[in-house]
Amino acid sequence: MSWNRYQEQTLFISELGFALDWSRMNCPEGFWDKLAEPIAAAFKSMKELEAGAIANPDEGRMVGHYWLRAPELAPTKELTHEITTALIDLKAFTAKVHSGAIKGAAGKFENLLIIGIGGSALGPQFVSQALGCPKGDKLRVFFFDNTDPDGMDVVLQQLAGNLGKTLAVVISKSGGTPETRNGMLEAEAAWKAAGLSFAAHAVAVTGVGSKLDKAAQVGGWLARFPMWDWVGGRTSETASVGIFPAMLQGIDTDGLLAGAAAMDRATRVADARKNPAAILALMWFFATDGRGAKDMVILPYKDRLGLFAKYLQQLIMESIGKEFDLNGWQVNQGIAVYGNKGSTDQHAYIQQLREGVPNFFATFIEVLKDREGSSMTVEGSATSGDFLQAFFLGTRAALHEKGRGSLTITVNEVSPQTVGQLIALYERAVGFYASLVNVNAYHQPGVEAGKKAATTTLAVLEKVLAQLSANKGKAFTAEAIATAIGLEKETELVFKLLEHLAANPARGIVKTPGATVFTATYAAK
Amino acid sequence: MSWNRYQEQTLFISELGFALDWSRMNCPEGFWDKLAEPIAAAFKSMKELEAGAIANPDEGRMVGHYWLRAPELAPTKELTHEITTALIDLKAFTAKVHSGAIKGAAGKFENLLIIGIGGSALGPQFVSQALGCPKGDKLRVFFFDNTDPDGMDVVLQQLAGNLGKTLAVVISKSGGTPETRNGMLEAEAAWKAAGLSFAAHAVAVTGVGSKLDKAAQVGGWLARFPMWDWVGGRTSETASVGIFPAMLQGIDTDGLLAGAAAMDRATRVADARKNPAAILALMWFFATDGRGAKDMVILPYKDRLGLFAKYLQQLIMESIGKEFDLNGWQVNQGIAVYGNKGSTDQHAYIQQLREGVPNFFATFIEVLKDREGSSMTVEGSATSGDFLQAFFLGTRAALHEKGRGSLTITVNEVSPQTVGQLIALYERAVGFYASLVNVNAYHQPGVEAGKKAATTTLAVLEKVLAQLSANKGKAFTAEAIATAIGLEKETELVFKLLEHLAANPARGIVKTPGATVFTATYAAK
Repeated sequence: MSWNRYQEQTLFISELGFALDWSRMNCPEGFWDKLAEPIAAAFKSMKELEAGAIANPDEGRMVGHYWLRAPELAPTKELTHEITTALIDLKAFTAKVHSGAIKGAAGKFENLLIIGIGGSALGPQFVSQALGCPKGDKLRVFFFDNTDPDGMDVVLQQLAGNLGKTLAVVISKSGGTPETRNGMLEAEAAWKAAGLSFAAHAVAVTGVGSKLDKAAQVGGWLARFPMWDWVGGRTSETASVGIFPAMLQGIDTDGLLAGAAAMDRATRVADARKNPAAILALMWFFATDGRGAKDMVILPYKDRLGLFAKYLQQLIMESIGKEFDLNGWQVNQGIAVYGNKGSTDQHAYIQQLREGVPNFFATFIEVLKDREGSSMTVEGSATSGDFLQAFFLGTRAALHEKGRGSLTITVNEVSPQTVGQLIALYERAVGFYASLVNVNAYHQPGVEAGKKAATTTLAVLEKVLAQLSANKGKAFTAEAIATAIGLEKETELVFKLLEHLAANPARGIVKTPGATVFTATYAAK
Repeated sequence: MSWNRYQEQTLFISELGFALDWSRMNCPEGFWDKLAEPIAAAFKSMKELEAGAIANPDEGRMVGHYWLRAPELAPTKELTHEITTALIDLKAFTAKVHSGAIKGAAGKFENLLIIGIGGSALGPQFVSQALGCPKGDKLRVFFFDNTDPDGMDVVLQQLAGNLGKTLAVVISKSGGTPETRNGMLEAEAAWKAAGLSFAAHAVAVTGVGSKLDKAAQVGGWLARFPMWDWVGGRTSETASVGIFPAMLQGIDTDGLLAGAAAMDRATRVADARKNPAAILALMWFFATDGRGAKDMVILPYKDRLGLFAKYLQQLIMESIGKEFDLNGWQVNQGIAVYGNKGSTDQHAYIQQLREGVPNFFATFIEVLKDREGSSMTVEGSATSGDFLQAFFLGTRAALHEKGRGSLTITVNEVSPQTVGQLIALYERAVGFYASLVNVNAYHQPGVEAGKKAATTTLAVLEKVLAQLSANKGKAFTAEAIATAIGLEKETELVFKLLEHLAANPARGIVKTPGATVFTATYAAK
């Protein structure tokens, strides 16, 4: 890379210790001019959104995650007050947990069990790993982030004997997410089995008046904290959803919010070439032809950022992956996002990135600070950290040599400030990109279909179980049961449900092999 | 899905408790005929490979991972003996670790630190999570899987005070992987700092006669175990590389090897429609036009399989992602692989999968057994496990409704046997697919370029450091240093190296801001 081009195509924001280098995207000069109007329009809609416009038209909602780190910008004084008060309340509660003024049945809280999924887990998991310190953390953090019974058992095994010192935080914006509700019920049962009151160890983070909110109120939980409808799940890391778990763990959340606020300021600049979120959005557009023609590979060279790609997978794919644009045209937008960490991933799939199908562009994330304290040398004058940098630079050069484009983000260190910066940077880049491709970044209509189909499935399960228990001891094939419940067309579904029931002996459904797999019979004991 | 089509397009292997359903790939009947000859050819080359042919022509090596679980199939008696003996040795050593006959300075080993990267970490990590039990494991497992100094510090923090009860296993086939070497040196320093001998707590798994092998011999390590050149890193889970860590953790590795052997037998069947690995390879070919036109999204609905997609990312992308085919034509092959777990991912990016850019096909993995013991009901008669299944079925239906293809693998449970099956299944599917697209699945020429560039980078670093220390106290710009060492064209690289040095104060390089970022100066103290 020529020194000149590097200097021209890298944005440094010294006060943030941040740089964004797009010199290896091979983007022709004319592209910027071509996109000048669309990006100006994106700036304008973002301004309106920040001022409280209904930016999520389908759901008739404001989109206010930017206010969370600059409450004075909220469109009404009431909102400003709500945001500030919520933060004060979270801090007061957290201080009492840390001091032991609020404690569990067995004493001061030592563990934290977060029960949440999607936006209520990915952000907290990313931040917990990025900023936690095994030895310094105030609480050890665990997650229920699915409705997998065995997955929950594995977590509970680790907490066995210590539930009396474990604080459970149930996080669901809507208060009705089934995975989270199931996790809560399983947790409640575990506390009960240990002779403990779950309510005395539980906190809810949810919309005021939601099912979960009411249950927590009626049940007399330790506390309830609000989650607002103008914060989307995937942009809730700087809301109570993300800040509260981090605060409990002992992470400097003021620093994280300050970092996000600082990046928000830097990404309000109306000159695209001086605005890192605009640069990202434009480069995504350039790389993917504005239609997801390439995948985005995220390669942070730092273990602490190992979950960032997973976090971005949600933020970007759920925001951009839309069937229709804002004018109602079918567009099937999106950008597939994947990645883990370097240099580890070099030993996994850089082979394909360099030589295989050129269907991606990479985003490298470089962290300048190696560790606390000094490093030994491992070869000549080089340290392990020098090797890490050399592998990043070497891989980037190897990809560039083969015409594979890449962006590079450089931060000084992984700190609350820089993690806040990265979160805010990508939140805004997603907003800009959605403007460029004219989609609503703030809804997720496609998620409903799967949920509905799941509800239907569970209704069929009830019918299957009813049919079997009304005929105890009698054995039926899947076909016979489907016919009996009037769902001949759903025989496959009935078969799948029966196979699952039979594989779990405690359900009391006994399978008898047939001449073929499909003629096995099932009976309730 | 019609019951008929489901029955026709699902392969059940009852003795393995395994099923593969391709009914939702919408593959026309004619496709099978069209690919009949190529898949027959794939069967033939696989047979030759298993008989000991040089299947990795570039490197002049046999490819023998199948022999690891059926040593009697190895092409010579000597090899059979070597494989069997190695396994006996690993077991004998492991038994002594578990009994305490081999122990650390502070007593019986309680922790295991695996130092490895790529094929020497992804498999062990996947298996450790899939089959471990926090409460039942013989050893707690930790990994150094990168050359990130802070990442290693985080692991060492967790082992602080317990290194005398920690067994370190350094795994590197070549014995020269720099990340692994660095991890070993950092670990050695940590043991030394704790007043302990690293050698007395260390074992090497590496090629006989490698650098690491010699170092371990000279250093008097606890033991050395062989890794053969006919086993590739990404197919080494059933070799010492993967089996030894699992065995130490207390996992039933005989079960895992038996599961792999059983799947090997099931995938030697010469009828493509009865061979699950052939079906996978053919469906990959169908979905991606035999040129990686679509991404492969892996969605296991089970927490324990949460790392399987990452494991497959390496196995598939590094094997298939090739620039040239076996005839020397430029083909830029590959299939991008990503995914985590369901139903968690439904809350992350199913929105895009259902509605966004249709650039993927999905592979669902269903596990019938929910957990050990019985489950409470969480809604009506449904358990958390019923919800998990309903979300899988619902999501699959929602994708199918929108024309997004999917495969479904069903296994009874996550056990050593089924994990072995899954590993063997994908190993052979990759081999078949490589035959279909005519690439060498067993080399990785593209990885070298990045390594070479990294070596060059480190050489430049030495020059930069030499220049600065020869002129102690004198401050230079990046340009001045680049010129002084005769690397004007590499000014950007010099600048990157200087910024990294300056961000790590212990290196003794002091930065003084300039009028612009690029005119800052750097001096050795």
